[in-house]
Amino acid sequence: MSEERPDDYQAGSPARLALDVLAHKWTLLIVLALKRGPLRFSRLQASVAGVSSEVLSTSLRELERDGIIERLDYATAPPRVEYDLTELGATLCEPAKAIRAWADAHGAAVLAARHRYDQLPRN
Amino acid sequence: MSEERPDDYQAGSPARLALDVLAHKWTLLIVLALKRGPLRFSRLQASVAGVSSEVLSTSLRELERDGIIERLDYATAPPRVEYDLTELGATLCEPAKAIRAWADAHGAAVLAARHRYDQLPRN
Repeated sequence: MSEERPDDYQAGSPARLALDVLAHKWTLLIVLALKRGPLRFSRLQASVAGVSSEVLSTSLRELERDGIIERLDYATAPPRVEYDLTELGATLCEPAKAIRAWADAHGAAVLAARHRYDQLPRN
Repeated sequence: MSEERPDDYQAGSPARLALDVLAHKWTLLIVLALKRGPLRFSRLQASVAGVSSEVLSTSLRELERDGIIERLDYATAPPRVEYDLTELGATLCEPAKAIRAWADAHGAAVLAARHRYDQLPRN
Protein backbone atom coordinates (compact mmCIF):
# COMPACT_ATOMS: atom_id res chain seq x y z
CA MET A 1 0.00 0.00 0.00
CA SER A 2 1.39 3.37 -0.94
CA GLU A 3 0.40 4.90 2.43
CA GLU A 4 2.82 2.51 4.12
CA ARG A 5 6.01 3.72 2.47
CA PRO A 6 8.25 5.59 4.91
CA ASP A 7 10.76 5.92 2.09
CA ASP A 8 8.69 8.81 0.73
CA TYR A 9 10.02 10.99 3.55
CA GLN A 10 13.41 11.74 2.07
CA ALA A 11 15.40 14.58 3.59
CA GLY A 12 14.46 17.81 1.83
CA SER A 13 11.05 16.69 0.59
CA PRO A 14 8.10 18.97 1.47
CA ALA A 15 6.44 16.21 3.51
CA ARG A 16 9.62 15.61 5.49
CA LEU A 17 9.95 19.32 6.07
CA ALA A 18 6.40 19.39 7.41
CA LEU A 19 7.15 16.44 9.69
CA ASP A 20 10.19 18.30 11.00
CA VAL A 21 8.02 21.33 11.78
CA LEU A 22 5.65 19.13 13.78
CA ALA A 23 8.53 17.32 15.45
CA HIS A 24 9.89 20.56 16.87
CA LYS A 25 9.70 20.35 20.66
CA TRP A 26 7.40 23.35 21.11
CA THR A 27 5.28 23.42 17.93
CA LEU A 28 2.42 21.33 19.29
CA LEU A 29 2.21 23.11 22.60
CA ILE A 30 2.20 26.49 20.86
CA VAL A 31 -0.49 25.39 18.39
CA LEU A 32 -2.62 23.95 21.21
CA ALA A 33 -2.21 27.19 23.16
CA LEU A 34 -3.32 29.32 20.19
CA LYS A 35 -6.28 27.14 19.20
CA ARG A 36 -8.77 29.37 20.97
CA GLY A 37 -7.48 32.64 19.57
CA PRO A 38 -4.57 35.10 19.59
CA LEU A 39 -2.45 35.57 22.69
CA ARG A 40 0.17 38.02 23.85
CA PHE A 41 3.67 36.72 24.40
CA SER A 42 3.37 36.61 28.20
CA ARG A 43 0.06 34.71 28.14
CA LEU A 44 1.42 32.30 25.53
CA GLN A 45 4.51 31.67 27.64
CA ALA A 46 2.30 30.92 30.65
CA SER A 47 0.34 28.40 28.55
CA VAL A 48 3.47 26.66 27.28
CA ALA A 49 4.81 25.90 30.73
CA GLY A 50 8.54 25.33 30.93
CA VAL A 51 9.60 27.33 27.88
CA SER A 52 12.08 30.18 28.36
CA SER A 53 11.47 33.59 26.77
CA GLU A 54 14.43 33.11 24.44
CA VAL A 55 13.33 29.68 23.23
CA LEU A 56 9.72 30.82 22.81
CA SER A 57 10.87 33.86 20.79
CA THR A 58 12.96 31.67 18.52
CA SER A 59 10.16 29.11 18.13
CA LEU A 60 7.63 31.81 17.26
CA ARG A 61 9.96 33.29 14.64
CA GLU A 62 10.47 29.85 13.09
CA LEU A 63 6.74 29.14 13.07
CA GLU A 64 6.13 32.55 11.51
CA ARG A 65 8.70 31.72 8.84
CA ASP A 66 6.93 28.41 8.23
CA GLY A 67 3.58 30.15 7.79
CA ILE A 68 2.04 28.51 10.88
CA ILE A 69 1.58 31.60 13.05
CA GLU A 70 1.41 35.32 12.43
CA ARG A 71 2.52 38.23 14.54
CA LEU A 72 -0.24 40.83 14.91
CA ASP A 73 1.27 44.23 15.65
CA TYR A 74 -1.57 46.61 16.50
CA ALA A 75 0.67 49.71 16.39
CA THR A 76 -1.20 51.21 19.31
CA ALA A 77 0.22 53.19 22.19
CA PRO A 78 1.28 51.40 24.30
CA PRO A 79 2.39 48.84 21.67
CA ARG A 80 0.35 45.65 21.59
CA VAL A 81 1.53 42.49 19.85
CA GLU A 82 -0.31 39.19 19.68
CA TYR A 83 0.36 35.84 18.06
CA ASP A 84 -2.27 33.92 16.14
CA LEU A 85 -2.57 30.82 14.00
CA THR A 86 -2.63 31.44 10.25
CA GLU A 87 -5.06 29.57 8.00
CA LEU A 88 -2.26 27.06 7.39
CA GLY A 89 -1.55 26.88 11.12
CA ALA A 90 -5.21 26.15 11.83
CA THR A 91 -4.92 23.00 9.70
CA LEU A 92 -2.56 21.70 12.40
CA CYS A 93 -5.40 21.55 14.91
CA GLU A 94 -6.60 18.23 13.48
CA PRO A 95 -3.32 16.29 13.89
CA ALA A 96 -2.71 18.16 17.15
CA LYS A 97 -6.01 16.77 18.43
CA ALA A 98 -4.97 13.21 17.50
CA ILE A 99 -1.61 13.68 19.19
CA ARG A 100 -3.24 15.15 22.23
CA ALA A 101 -5.68 12.25 22.48
CA TRP A 102 -2.72 9.88 22.31
CA ALA A 103 -0.81 11.79 24.97
CA ASP A 104 -3.84 11.81 27.27
CA ALA A 105 -4.51 8.11 26.76
CA HIS A 106 -0.94 6.79 26.88
CA GLY A 107 1.17 9.27 28.83
CA ALA A 108 0.94 7.20 32.00
CA ALA A 109 2.00 4.03 30.13
CA VAL A 110 5.08 5.80 28.74
CA LEU A 111 5.99 6.96 32.22
CA ALA A 112 5.54 3.43 33.62
CA ALA A 113 7.69 1.96 30.81
CA ARG A 114 10.40 4.48 31.59
CA HIS A 115 10.40 3.58 35.28
CA ARG A 116 10.56 -0.15 34.48
CA TYR A 117 13.46 0.39 32.07
CA ASP A 118 15.41 2.41 34.60
CA GLN A 119 15.08 -0.37 37.17
CA LEU A 120 16.44 -3.09 34.89
CA PRO A 121 19.97 -4.27 35.68
CA ARG A 122 22.38 -3.06 32.96
CA ASN A 123 25.18 -5.29 31.74
CA MET B 1 -14.43 23.04 26.74
CA SER B 2 -12.00 20.92 28.66
CA GLU B 3 -10.35 19.67 25.45
CA GLU B 4 -9.23 23.23 24.74
CA ARG B 5 -7.07 23.76 27.81
CA PRO B 6 -3.37 23.86 26.94
CA ASP B 7 -2.67 24.55 30.60
CA ASP B 8 -3.12 20.85 31.29
CA TYR B 9 0.27 20.18 29.71
CA GLN B 10 2.43 21.22 32.63
CA ALA B 11 6.08 20.19 32.60
CA GLY B 12 6.40 16.75 34.19
CA SER B 13 2.80 15.62 33.59
CA PRO B 14 2.36 12.26 31.82
CA ALA B 15 0.58 13.93 28.88
CA ARG B 16 3.37 16.45 28.49
CA LEU B 17 5.91 13.65 28.63
CA ALA B 18 4.02 11.84 25.87
CA LEU B 19 3.96 15.01 23.78
CA ASP B 20 7.71 15.32 24.23
CA VAL B 21 8.18 11.74 23.00
CA LEU B 22 6.19 12.56 19.87
CA ALA B 23 7.98 15.85 19.41
CA HIS B 24 11.35 14.13 19.24
CA LYS B 25 12.79 14.74 15.79
CA TRP B 26 12.98 11.07 14.77
CA THR B 27 10.11 9.41 16.65
CA LEU B 28 7.54 9.76 13.88
CA LEU B 29 9.83 8.63 11.12
CA ILE B 30 10.91 5.59 13.13
CA VAL B 31 7.29 4.68 13.97
CA LEU B 32 6.25 5.11 10.33
CA ALA B 33 9.18 2.93 9.25
CA LEU B 34 8.24 0.13 11.67
CA LYS B 35 4.50 0.18 10.91
CA ARG B 36 4.76 -2.77 8.56
CA GLY B 37 6.82 -4.95 10.88
CA PRO B 38 10.25 -5.39 12.47
CA LEU B 39 13.39 -4.18 10.74
CA ARG B 40 17.10 -4.59 11.22
CA PHE B 41 19.12 -1.54 12.11
CA SER B 42 20.54 -1.06 8.60
CA ARG B 43 17.14 -1.32 6.93
CA LEU B 44 15.63 1.03 9.48
CA GLN B 45 18.41 3.54 8.91
CA ALA B 46 17.76 3.40 5.17
CA SER B 47 14.05 4.09 5.77
CA VAL B 48 14.76 7.05 8.05
CA ALA B 49 16.81 8.93 5.49
CA GLY B 50 19.24 11.45 6.88
CA VAL B 51 19.73 9.95 10.35
CA SER B 52 23.26 9.03 11.42
CA SER B 53 23.99 5.64 13.05
CA GLU B 54 24.79 7.34 16.34
CA VAL B 55 21.60 9.39 16.44
CA LEU B 56 19.48 6.41 15.36
CA SER B 57 21.06 4.24 18.09
CA THR B 58 20.33 6.86 20.72
CA SER B 59 16.78 7.40 19.46
CA LEU B 60 16.06 3.67 19.50
CA ARG B 61 17.36 3.35 23.05
CA GLU B 62 15.16 6.24 24.16
CA LEU B 63 12.11 4.79 22.41
CA GLU B 64 12.85 1.42 24.01
CA ARG B 65 13.03 3.14 27.40
CA ASP B 66 9.69 4.82 26.67
CA GLY B 67 8.08 1.48 25.83
CA ILE B 68 7.46 2.43 22.18
CA ILE B 69 9.78 -0.06 20.49
CA GLU B 70 11.43 -3.31 21.48
CA ARG B 71 14.74 -4.80 20.52
CA LEU B 72 14.37 -8.40 19.35
CA ASP B 73 17.61 -10.30 19.83
CA TYR B 74 17.28 -13.70 18.15
CA ALA B 75 20.51 -15.05 19.69
CA THR B 76 21.31 -16.89 16.48
CA ALA B 77 24.68 -17.35 14.83
CA PRO B 78 25.39 -14.98 13.19
CA PRO B 79 23.61 -12.64 15.64
CA ARG B 80 20.37 -11.13 14.38
CA VAL B 81 18.72 -8.12 15.99
CA GLU B 82 15.53 -6.42 14.87
CA TYR B 83 13.48 -3.52 16.11
CA ASP B 84 9.70 -3.64 16.38
CA LEU B 85 6.84 -1.54 17.69
CA THR B 86 5.46 -2.65 21.07
CA GLU B 87 1.72 -2.74 21.71
CA LEU B 88 2.05 0.79 23.15
CA GLY B 89 4.13 1.85 20.13
CA ALA B 90 1.45 0.54 17.78
CA THR B 91 -1.02 2.99 19.34
CA LEU B 92 1.14 5.74 17.83
CA CYS B 93 0.15 4.66 14.31
CA GLU B 94 -3.14 6.55 14.56
CA PRO B 95 -1.69 10.01 15.40
CA ALA B 96 1.21 9.26 13.05
CA LYS B 97 -1.33 8.79 10.26
CA ALA B 98 -2.95 12.15 11.03
CA ILE B 99 0.43 13.85 11.09
CA ARG B 100 1.43 12.17 7.89
CA ALA B 101 -1.77 13.27 6.16
CA TRP B 102 -1.03 16.82 7.29
CA ALA B 103 2.56 16.66 6.06
CA ASP B 104 1.43 15.32 2.69
CA ALA B 105 -1.30 17.94 2.31
CA HIS B 106 0.56 20.98 3.60
CA GLY B 107 4.29 20.37 3.16
CA ALA B 108 4.40 22.41 -0.03
CA ALA B 109 2.58 25.33 1.64
CA VAL B 110 5.12 25.36 4.48
CA LEU B 111 7.96 25.40 1.97
CA ALA B 112 6.33 28.25 0.04
CA ALA B 113 5.80 30.25 3.26
CA ARG B 114 9.44 29.76 4.15
CA HIS B 115 10.58 31.04 0.75
CA ARG B 116 8.32 34.08 1.01
CA TYR B 117 9.59 34.87 4.50
CA ASP B 118 13.22 34.61 3.42
CA GLN B 119 12.61 37.11 0.62
CA LEU B 120 11.08 39.79 2.84
CA PRO B 121 13.29 42.78 3.53
CA ARG B 122 14.44 42.75 7.18
CA ASN B 123 14.69 45.93 9.16
